[in-house]
Amino acid sequence: MELTQVGSLTRELKDNEVLIRGRVHAIRAKGKKMAFLFVREGGFTVQCLASLQTEGVTYEMVNFIAKLNRESIVDVIGVVSIPENPIKGTTQEVEILVTKFYCDTRLDFRVLDLRTPANRGIFRIQSQVQSIFSQFLLSEDFVQIHTPKILAGSSEGGSAVFTLNYKGQLACLAQSPQLHKQMAICADFKRVFEIGHVFRAEDSYTHRHLCEFIGLDVEMEIKDHYSELMDMVDRLFVTIFDGLNERCGNELEAVRKQYPFEPLRYTPNTLRLTFEEGVEMLKDAGVEVDPLGDLNTEAERKLGQLVLEKYDTEFYILHRFPLALELLEERAKACGIDVETISSYLDSFRYGVPPHGGFGAGLERVVMLFCGLNNIRKTSLFPRDPRRLVP
Amino acid sequence: MELTQVGSLTRELKDNEVLIRGRVHAIRAKGKKMAFLFVREGGFTVQCLASLQTEGVTYEMVNFIAKLNRESIVDVIGVVSIPENPIKGTTQEVEILVTKFYCDTRLDFRVLDLRTPANRGIFRIQSQVQSIFSQFLLSEDFVQIHTPKILAGSSEGGSAVFTLNYKGQLACLAQSPQLHKQMAICADFKRVFEIGHVFRAEDSYTHRHLCEFIGLDVEMEIKDHYSELMDMVDRLFVTIFDGLNERCGNELEAVRKQYPFEPLRYTPNTLRLTFEEGVEMLKDAGVEVDPLGDLNTEAERKLGQLVLEKYDTEFYILHRFPLALELLEERAKACGIDVETISSYLDSFRYGVPPHGGFGAGLERVVMLFCGLNNIRKTSLFPRDPRRLVP
Repeated sequence: MELTQVGSLTRELKDNEVLIRGRVHAIRAKGKKMAFLFVREGGFTVQCLASLQTEGVTYEMVNFIAKLNRESIVDVIGVVSIPENPIKGTTQEVEILVTKFYCDTRLDFRVLDLRTPANRGIFRIQSQVQSIFSQFLLSEDFVQIHTPKILAGSSEGGSAVFTLNYKGQLACLAQSPQLHKQMAICADFKRVFEIGHVFRAEDSYTHRHLCEFIGLDVEMEIKDHYSELMDMVDRLFVTIFDGLNERCGNELEAVRKQYPFEPLRYTPNTLRLTFEEGVEMLKDAGVEVDPLGDLNTEAERKLGQLVLEKYDTEFYILHRFPLALELLEERAKACGIDVETISSYLDSFRYGVPPHGGFGAGLERVVMLFCGLNNIRKTSLFPRDPRRLVP
Repeated sequence: MELTQVGSLTRELKDNEVLIRGRVHAIRAKGKKMAFLFVREGGFTVQCLASLQTEGVTYEMVNFIAKLNRESIVDVIGVVSIPENPIKGTTQEVEILVTKFYCDTRLDFRVLDLRTPANRGIFRIQSQVQSIFSQFLLSEDFVQIHTPKILAGSSEGGSAVFTLNYKGQLACLAQSPQLHKQMAICADFKRVFEIGHVFRAEDSYTHRHLCEFIGLDVEMEIKDHYSELMDMVDRLFVTIFDGLNERCGNELEAVRKQYPFEPLRYTPNTLRLTFEEGVEMLKDAGVEVDPLGDLNTEAERKLGQLVLEKYDTEFYILHRFPLALELLEERAKACGIDVETISSYLDSFRYGVPPHGGFGAGLERVVMLFCGLNNIRKTSLFPRDPRRLVP
């Protein structure tokens, strides 16, 4: 029996006992007395057997395992053995006789999970973010709008879209309010904002992606220079951060007790770096990025770290992205968008449109950032990801 | 040539000229020089021919007609004639040679339409409704939440649901936040509200139905008696109405100029009628309704009229509906809901839930009511109905 074969999956405990942490790859129940569980981690898959014949294993345990969702993350403790029949469909020749078993089911029982003081705090903070966001913008003469979430065609572009049959027409769920908030500017609304659902069908299983989230979106006319937009971002977010610190002392304390974090570092006037300056900072730190491209997640994170060290802030504005000057329709084509599906958007621009600009942020991400949380599912009431559609 | 055959469709103008108002049933373009249009009204369909050979008809007119959407409402003016070839697929033996043609395309060019002072007013009023609604509820210690819009299964019930494929699972768009706002109460949130999208696939072509609208929803624990809920409805809406009258003088004036209306009549303390009292008032006025049933639209409208006459208010609360006491799961079954699809909702109740109640209103309807508008499409920025999915 070679434990090393089980690779990165296992950690030896004592007396041949191992701990495996991985995802449920497949399950095969055999009557009510045993269940086979295939656990995957990285490139490895191992077969685990929960059987009433193993000491300490109960009927409830077998039943619980048999009903798990595929792709759940589980901790299996068991004893390595060589099975009577050769194993099919795994990368291991051994099997684990399960003795103990853990699966985090908090999100399945979200209604109970939400009762904790920390969660109560998180959603009261989230409620306040919206309130401060709206009140600030209304005081700056913005109008709160709601743009349609069902759009004709197969989307503004990209494949990360949920499609549906709308009374016989092909339709999709809006991946952002981008087109219609700009159309509101074409309609001379001057300054608009929206707090509303955004839908992304992306296959992202990360700590910061959801298939459904709340977008905080802003679009405004620009009088002379796009720095007006940065001024707005700056004052808006500083007002939100200040407001949370003022109003949400108890809630922040409740969150901190369960998930310790340091207060967000930000400055009264938000630091503004040009893309070029950001690229330069990264270069000086030995990270090469395309000066005409975009920053990937890793480069973004590294830049955040460098900015924190140099300027003592976790919140800053990066502007003058190299793509900002290209023409709308050409850009659309270059992004692989079928121009037909956004024709009413393009038409809106033909009717004349003032210079304008905007920005957006995910409500869940703002709260996650402010509370230093490690997973966006913690800031979504009933999160939806590619594998979670309940409760 | 018997004009009466054309039935309710036509009205004679002069010199054999007729006006037809109806819906576009079908269109057949013949090259760029002529287009056949089949106009339907009630049970009648008549063929109209727009041809360059008719005096006054231009190339642009033929082209415009050829590109109309089916089911658009059109006014056709033309001369009745007997065609050379017998007509197929209509209920008439005559055809109309089009001379003039009108189609209301305001919603197609919504971006231009929205620029009018009245529309600007409508959406600034709508923005204020949300602001007053939120601020009032926050001051009453409510938490603003967002419930998921994509639900597993084929819905809370009913057929009026948009379904979609969610990564291989059957899913649907939420027809209301009802289940999840109650689940937030199960999670001890105590008092919650939501401003969010609601999706209804109903085939309703009325002046007050949309396939996508914004729900203003409230759910709260009840301490002793459900009158607490009525107190909340009462104070909330009176605060909204008072607030609009205070803050939106200019906007209301702009709306009134284009769409004249009388100010909404309401009282500082909202009138409360029991269902029984309502039924009694209707009975006295000669309208019979089922005392154990529900009120249909017509009975609702009649009651509104009676209340206005007797109490001088257009806003009142009707309570103690006869169905209020039945059990949840039985009610679900009785409504034809597959209990499996709402199992996480039912489970939430099994974990213990305080007495609670709630209410909801459509944002577009509140504005429509307050401004005495005749069509809900006027209060939706980019309306969606069974046949409109753009712009």
